[in-house]
Amino acid sequence: MTAFPAFAFRVDAIDGAARTGAVSTPHGEVRTPAFMPVGTQGAMKGVHWRDVKASGADIVLGNTYHLMLRPGAERIAELGGLHRFVNWPHPILTDSGGFQVMSLSELRKIDHNGVAFRSHLDGAMFALTPERAIEIQTLLGSDIVMQLDECIRLPQPQAELERAMKLSLAWAERCKRAFESAPPGRALFGIVQGGDDRSLRAASARALVDMDFAGYAVGGLAVGEPQAVMLAMIEEVVPFLPADRPRYLMGVGTPDDLLGAASRGIDMFDCVLPTRNGRHGLVYTRFGAINLRNARHAADPRPLDPESRCPAARDYSRAYLHHLVKAGEMIGAMLLSEVNLYYYQDLMAGVRGAIAAGKLAEFCAATREGWARGDVAAV
Amino acid sequence: MTAFPAFAFRVDAIDGAARTGAVSTPHGEVRTPAFMPVGTQGAMKGVHWRDVKASGADIVLGNTYHLMLRPGAERIAELGGLHRFVNWPHPILTDSGGFQVMSLSELRKIDHNGVAFRSHLDGAMFALTPERAIEIQTLLGSDIVMQLDECIRLPQPQAELERAMKLSLAWAERCKRAFESAPPGRALFGIVQGGDDRSLRAASARALVDMDFAGYAVGGLAVGEPQAVMLAMIEEVVPFLPADRPRYLMGVGTPDDLLGAASRGIDMFDCVLPTRNGRHGLVYTRFGAINLRNARHAADPRPLDPESRCPAARDYSRAYLHHLVKAGEMIGAMLLSEVNLYYYQDLMAGVRGAIAAGKLAEFCAATREGWARGDVAAV
Repeated sequence: MTAFPAFAFRVDAIDGAARTGAVSTPHGEVRTPAFMPVGTQGAMKGVHWRDVKASGADIVLGNTYHLMLRPGAERIAELGGLHRFVNWPHPILTDSGGFQVMSLSELRKIDHNGVAFRSHLDGAMFALTPERAIEIQTLLGSDIVMQLDECIRLPQPQAELERAMKLSLAWAERCKRAFESAPPGRALFGIVQGGDDRSLRAASARALVDMDFAGYAVGGLAVGEPQAVMLAMIEEVVPFLPADRPRYLMGVGTPDDLLGAASRGIDMFDCVLPTRNGRHGLVYTRFGAINLRNARHAADPRPLDPESRCPAARDYSRAYLHHLVKAGEMIGAMLLSEVNLYYYQDLMAGVRGAIAAGKLAEFCAATREGWARGDVAAV
Repeated sequence: MTAFPAFAFRVDAIDGAARTGAVSTPHGEVRTPAFMPVGTQGAMKGVHWRDVKASGADIVLGNTYHLMLRPGAERIAELGGLHRFVNWPHPILTDSGGFQVMSLSELRKIDHNGVAFRSHLDGAMFALTPERAIEIQTLLGSDIVMQLDECIRLPQPQAELERAMKLSLAWAERCKRAFESAPPGRALFGIVQGGDDRSLRAASARALVDMDFAGYAVGGLAVGEPQAVMLAMIEEVVPFLPADRPRYLMGVGTPDDLLGAASRGIDMFDCVLPTRNGRHGLVYTRFGAINLRNARHAADPRPLDPESRCPAARDYSRAYLHHLVKAGEMIGAMLLSEVNLYYYQDLMAGVRGAIAAGKLAEFCAATREGWARGDVAAV
């Protein structure tokens, strides 16, 4: 199984605060900055795994919360682990389950020990402690394991931000201890919390770095705050993080968020936007976002982007894609999700190339100019 | 566009009442006996067109009723016709819309002239006459065009069967006249009606053959009657049909129906079963039908059929497919629809090869034996 070296991170080039390089995992290499599509329940919604790979994704994210409830971490372990279960032999990062416990489950009760909650599927009671979060991710066989943390919506009072940040730090320590018995080669990332409070963010980052993680995530952003606040928090945190460890901005974001965060030194991203928006008829292109529900596409014979690498963006007219979306055909969701996965990967490839060439600022400016120019209407 | 000859049919081998050969159309050749997957609204539900082709389909069916309502036949014609609109450059047969008018629309009013109905989408009034049915299919650019007919559910009183059969004959004549101005190379098929009444079936077939169609369909079956009645009606009708014209059994059926009907001289089939059942977790295999919702699959690491040509049947465990179905993941419906489309095409390829070898009876017996042996449980 382990044809590649154990976890490692290398930086090949830097451009301002941004860097490009690669994360090595037991299942292969991840070119950074990297975008990780989200396969929540062991599946990418509406996209075959072969097309996820063809889009350019090196790594995907699986959701511990969903997988622990169904089919269960022990079941997946019996079946050879998550890579084999879903037939994705490339790197996988799993979250800790904490975020979805907060957003999806009912009757959760959180204390210093962990969180007890009812499954949103059948009401069964579950408990998630730092130790259990590590155990589940070990059973899944994740290449990159995330600590359990408490992620809260913004805005919040400072005292509440501090309580959640400190609890996350305590859980980080317990996760680190629990991870000591994990199989070799895998990596555990700590998660910086602290909401939109600069001093809490700094304190969280410092304490985590003292614990020495293989990588550091910035969590608790893109949870209701303006983009400027998110970028300011990244600028606050990044200087505290060691240059030789990957930095992962969790749950972010739009194409513009990715440019802003990569420019500030973030190496990894994940987000459901490409597939979720694709299912709802919204695609990202070089010309900005395009809503295919709009009646202006109904008779438009042009493809979305004849120069795209993505077959779905080249091989079908906007009129057809509009028809599929209006008719509620599965294939509409499938094709538009694919368009978005390709666009996100192409954007990251562009970012990586630009950093290597020392021209990230120019790349970002040109990309934003293309979006701002907008989609030209059919003649 | 026309790289292939105009419409033609050739028989390469016969075995009892069964024949194998090919239908030639302006968009290519269709090996017969042929199964046509149904792309109702200009899309195969949950299956990329490239996978429809890879499954072995030479031809697909489009539904005139759905396409006339949305996006509209004139719109599709403006966009270059149905082949180009959906990006399927291979043969297409369209039905006349009559069947769905009867089954889906509201407030329909049928008289000798045609049928007036309200769209099931928005309540708008539409009219479908024999002439309009031909016009729509001409606008779509179908390779094989079906006459407008009246298809009624069984059982029915004899007088009602006779009324509908005679109306269908009158409409067949009007369709034939209207089709005279259609572009060259395309074919119009007449449809034998008469329900489960042998003498009405015979009368319908005789009258249609007198009108001289390029092919003949048997309609109004698989609408509630037992399989034995359906097969008896095929046996009644086939002897009246000219040997040098293709015979198409509409809307049929299960794998066993296909064996029975091909053995009785049918050359073409269409049915929504492979994709509809796939969406609901039911797959057809060499070992019979398998319901992946069943809990017995939850921990089964075996693929559905390691010897299948279909990637979805080989590359995923039953446990994973079960999980996807239970979780309601789109990819579950997508993979299982693909499994079924491949199975149907492999079955037809087997039928064709067996007819060519003069061993169709043996092939049918061996295939049914495999189904009856059933799916072996995991060890």
